[in-house]
Amino acid sequence: MVECYIEDIGQYVGQEVKLKGWVYNLRSSGKIRFIVFRDGTGTIQVVMVKSELPEEVFEQHKELTQESSIIVTGIVSEHPRQKGTYELQLTDLEIVQICEDYPITKKEHTTGFLMGHRHLWLRSSRQYKIMRIRNEILMAFRQYFYENGFILIDTPLLTGSIGETAATLFETQYFDLGKAYLAQTGQLYLEAACMAHGKVYCLGPTFRAEKSKTRRHLTEFWMLEAEVAYLEHEGNLDLQEDMVCCVVSRVLENCTDQLEELGRDLAPLRNVQKPFYRIDYNEAVEKLQAAGSNIEWGHDLGGEDETILTNMYDRPVFVSNYPREAKAFYMKRNPDDPRTVLCADLLAPEGYGEIIGGSQREDNYDYLVEEIKRNDLPLDVYGWYLDLRKYGSVPHSGFGLGIERTVGWICGLPHVRETIPFARMLYKLYP
Amino acid sequence: MVECYIEDIGQYVGQEVKLKGWVYNLRSSGKIRFIVFRDGTGTIQVVMVKSELPEEVFEQHKELTQESSIIVTGIVSEHPRQKGTYELQLTDLEIVQICEDYPITKKEHTTGFLMGHRHLWLRSSRQYKIMRIRNEILMAFRQYFYENGFILIDTPLLTGSIGETAATLFETQYFDLGKAYLAQTGQLYLEAACMAHGKVYCLGPTFRAEKSKTRRHLTEFWMLEAEVAYLEHEGNLDLQEDMVCCVVSRVLENCTDQLEELGRDLAPLRNVQKPFYRIDYNEAVEKLQAAGSNIEWGHDLGGEDETILTNMYDRPVFVSNYPREAKAFYMKRNPDDPRTVLCADLLAPEGYGEIIGGSQREDNYDYLVEEIKRNDLPLDVYGWYLDLRKYGSVPHSGFGLGIERTVGWICGLPHVRETIPFARMLYKLYP
Repeated sequence: MVECYIEDIGQYVGQEVKLKGWVYNLRSSGKIRFIVFRDGTGTIQVVMVKSELPEEVFEQHKELTQESSIIVTGIVSEHPRQKGTYELQLTDLEIVQICEDYPITKKEHTTGFLMGHRHLWLRSSRQYKIMRIRNEILMAFRQYFYENGFILIDTPLLTGSIGETAATLFETQYFDLGKAYLAQTGQLYLEAACMAHGKVYCLGPTFRAEKSKTRRHLTEFWMLEAEVAYLEHEGNLDLQEDMVCCVVSRVLENCTDQLEELGRDLAPLRNVQKPFYRIDYNEAVEKLQAAGSNIEWGHDLGGEDETILTNMYDRPVFVSNYPREAKAFYMKRNPDDPRTVLCADLLAPEGYGEIIGGSQREDNYDYLVEEIKRNDLPLDVYGWYLDLRKYGSVPHSGFGLGIERTVGWICGLPHVRETIPFARMLYKLYP
Repeated sequence: MVECYIEDIGQYVGQEVKLKGWVYNLRSSGKIRFIVFRDGTGTIQVVMVKSELPEEVFEQHKELTQESSIIVTGIVSEHPRQKGTYELQLTDLEIVQICEDYPITKKEHTTGFLMGHRHLWLRSSRQYKIMRIRNEILMAFRQYFYENGFILIDTPLLTGSIGETAATLFETQYFDLGKAYLAQTGQLYLEAACMAHGKVYCLGPTFRAEKSKTRRHLTEFWMLEAEVAYLEHEGNLDLQEDMVCCVVSRVLENCTDQLEELGRDLAPLRNVQKPFYRIDYNEAVEKLQAAGSNIEWGHDLGGEDETILTNMYDRPVFVSNYPREAKAFYMKRNPDDPRTVLCADLLAPEGYGEIIGGSQREDNYDYLVEEIKRNDLPLDVYGWYLDLRKYGSVPHSGFGLGIERTVGWICGLPHVRETIPFARMLYKLYP
């Protein structure tokens, strides 16, 4: 007899197979009893017919509970009306463990309770689908870069240098060498590597010890970063646009069912096509002020500003050339307006807001030293980074995309906490 | 005129193209001067013929230095005798930056010096090739799992629970919640996730605050981990064997040139075929003692033992069923010999030693509690982990593979420090 997974069961219609998994749900209607059975790759309805089973097998149904682990054997049949839907006519049932008092029941639970039981909540249908879409999104990003000749450079997490700002760092003692900081970004290392490989990327965890409690913040989140030598500001936007379009279209193709089951409206995602809107920071501020925001020139856009702004557009929008004070020290000054820098944030539509921050990098040694000092960062630990402006400096650009925000946007979720298997937030370190 | 990368230059034979990059090397022979030019995607010889260039362009060659950034324009030609090798007959040259006193020259440098200049050393030919092979290896692993229906579960790096042992943890203050520990493994989280998705994996950085100074140890290294519900010990070995064979064969196919240029003997890699050798710990100890090792039953194999042992085999070898005292608390006791556990290490040939550690996991609640206590680990933080043995516990197995050790083995390198872009070791936190 074949042992198989539910995802492959279509190959075995009419045959007897063995499946190993868990009880997802139970129903009974007199002489027929049902198990909604899951094995990790899918769910299937298992049918137990009293007249066709030994009594002791049929009666086992009464013992079963939600999440009991069981092994079922039966004949595969296709649903007479729903093509692609299969059932299993049970012939034998083996109980591995009866699950008692499973904490997550059909009643309403608070999010706090569910997050506290994240190790079990992952089994629930909605969380299950989100993780599968996340899996597809991450593979789509990686293949995009692999196929376009980018080299993966895994940047270090324990660092002596500070990525962007000293204010939000987790630190740890590093043997006799003093403090190490958990990376906020891999960018500085990618800049070094792009001088070796031309086009590089990384995709790993990053950390911000921010005391923010918003629907967009995690203390540990995954970031995709790319860096390209000899790439300038406009080309950087073209790259991001192409990447986002490719990834969204692949996810739409491979995860249609899961997105629909999550209730995601697919129309706005289908609309993610080139060209994206490209506006200037000045224009963004004017539009926001006209819409009632009290933003003033010189400040970064807040989460609410981004929501207002993206609701004005039916596709992602780049906002370019922010004031220097609002952005990180390494961004290249804008030759046309030295108060601003050659950067852009990409804001996702439907109110989602920033998913990418990018810029051309300052490639002039003297300007860069000036900015490090102006930001009160310790010049000595940036020695190696400054070397990149001494030894064959070239114009270069890159960006960072927040994976959880992107998963949240594509899945249509209100909060990033459901977009990552085990979220870390201000008050959340377990499980 | 076309702007292109060297990797695509074969499409432009006879045409004029523009390339942006750096001087790798310079040569002069009277009326012809050469630039070995690199752009990150490859290198090409640029030929400057005095009689065919304006004098001021020809004379620019004298200004050039190693690693100066330049933009070259010229006509592409194929080497008359070496098919697939191209040259550029220069028509114009633009200097972006002259590089002065580049620290890495052709003379011998100490490894300490080179590691201290890792941000520049990455540009050297050997390091360049290693990173490209690493890129291929990592994509091969990811595609293996993606194509075999495994779901990527990014496990947290900041954790309240301790992975394997409290002795080698980096810790950081986590707001008001006390200490967080940097993950030694994602396994415990994968065990939770495999009860939701059946087959899961993660591939991310892990940390060990070990004071080891060996050629096999980093404090921060990347680990591939996989976990499968309802998989038992022997099936776990089958999975690892299949994965390693697929990855090695793909790398051999896609990176032949780079491996050969590194001087890697390809014969032992071509020999990585099923079936791998499978021996018992007891047998390993007997063989080692016969070969002169002073290992005693009850201890883990040391690095040297692994070297001796793997030199006895021409393919990877699994060593199964180690004594319980030598291994982590979560491994399932061996029903045939309760002094040992259902685990295996996979040792790479040619003296490389352990690249994978795996086991069937203890699925019995009471036994697991006993082991947590016996290892002096704090029972309370494992509450969620123990839940997995209460709510539908099933047999399950998994393993962890060290990426840097695997890259070292495949590339044939003596030390792991060259296998990762920016190594972190006992005395190494910069650059």
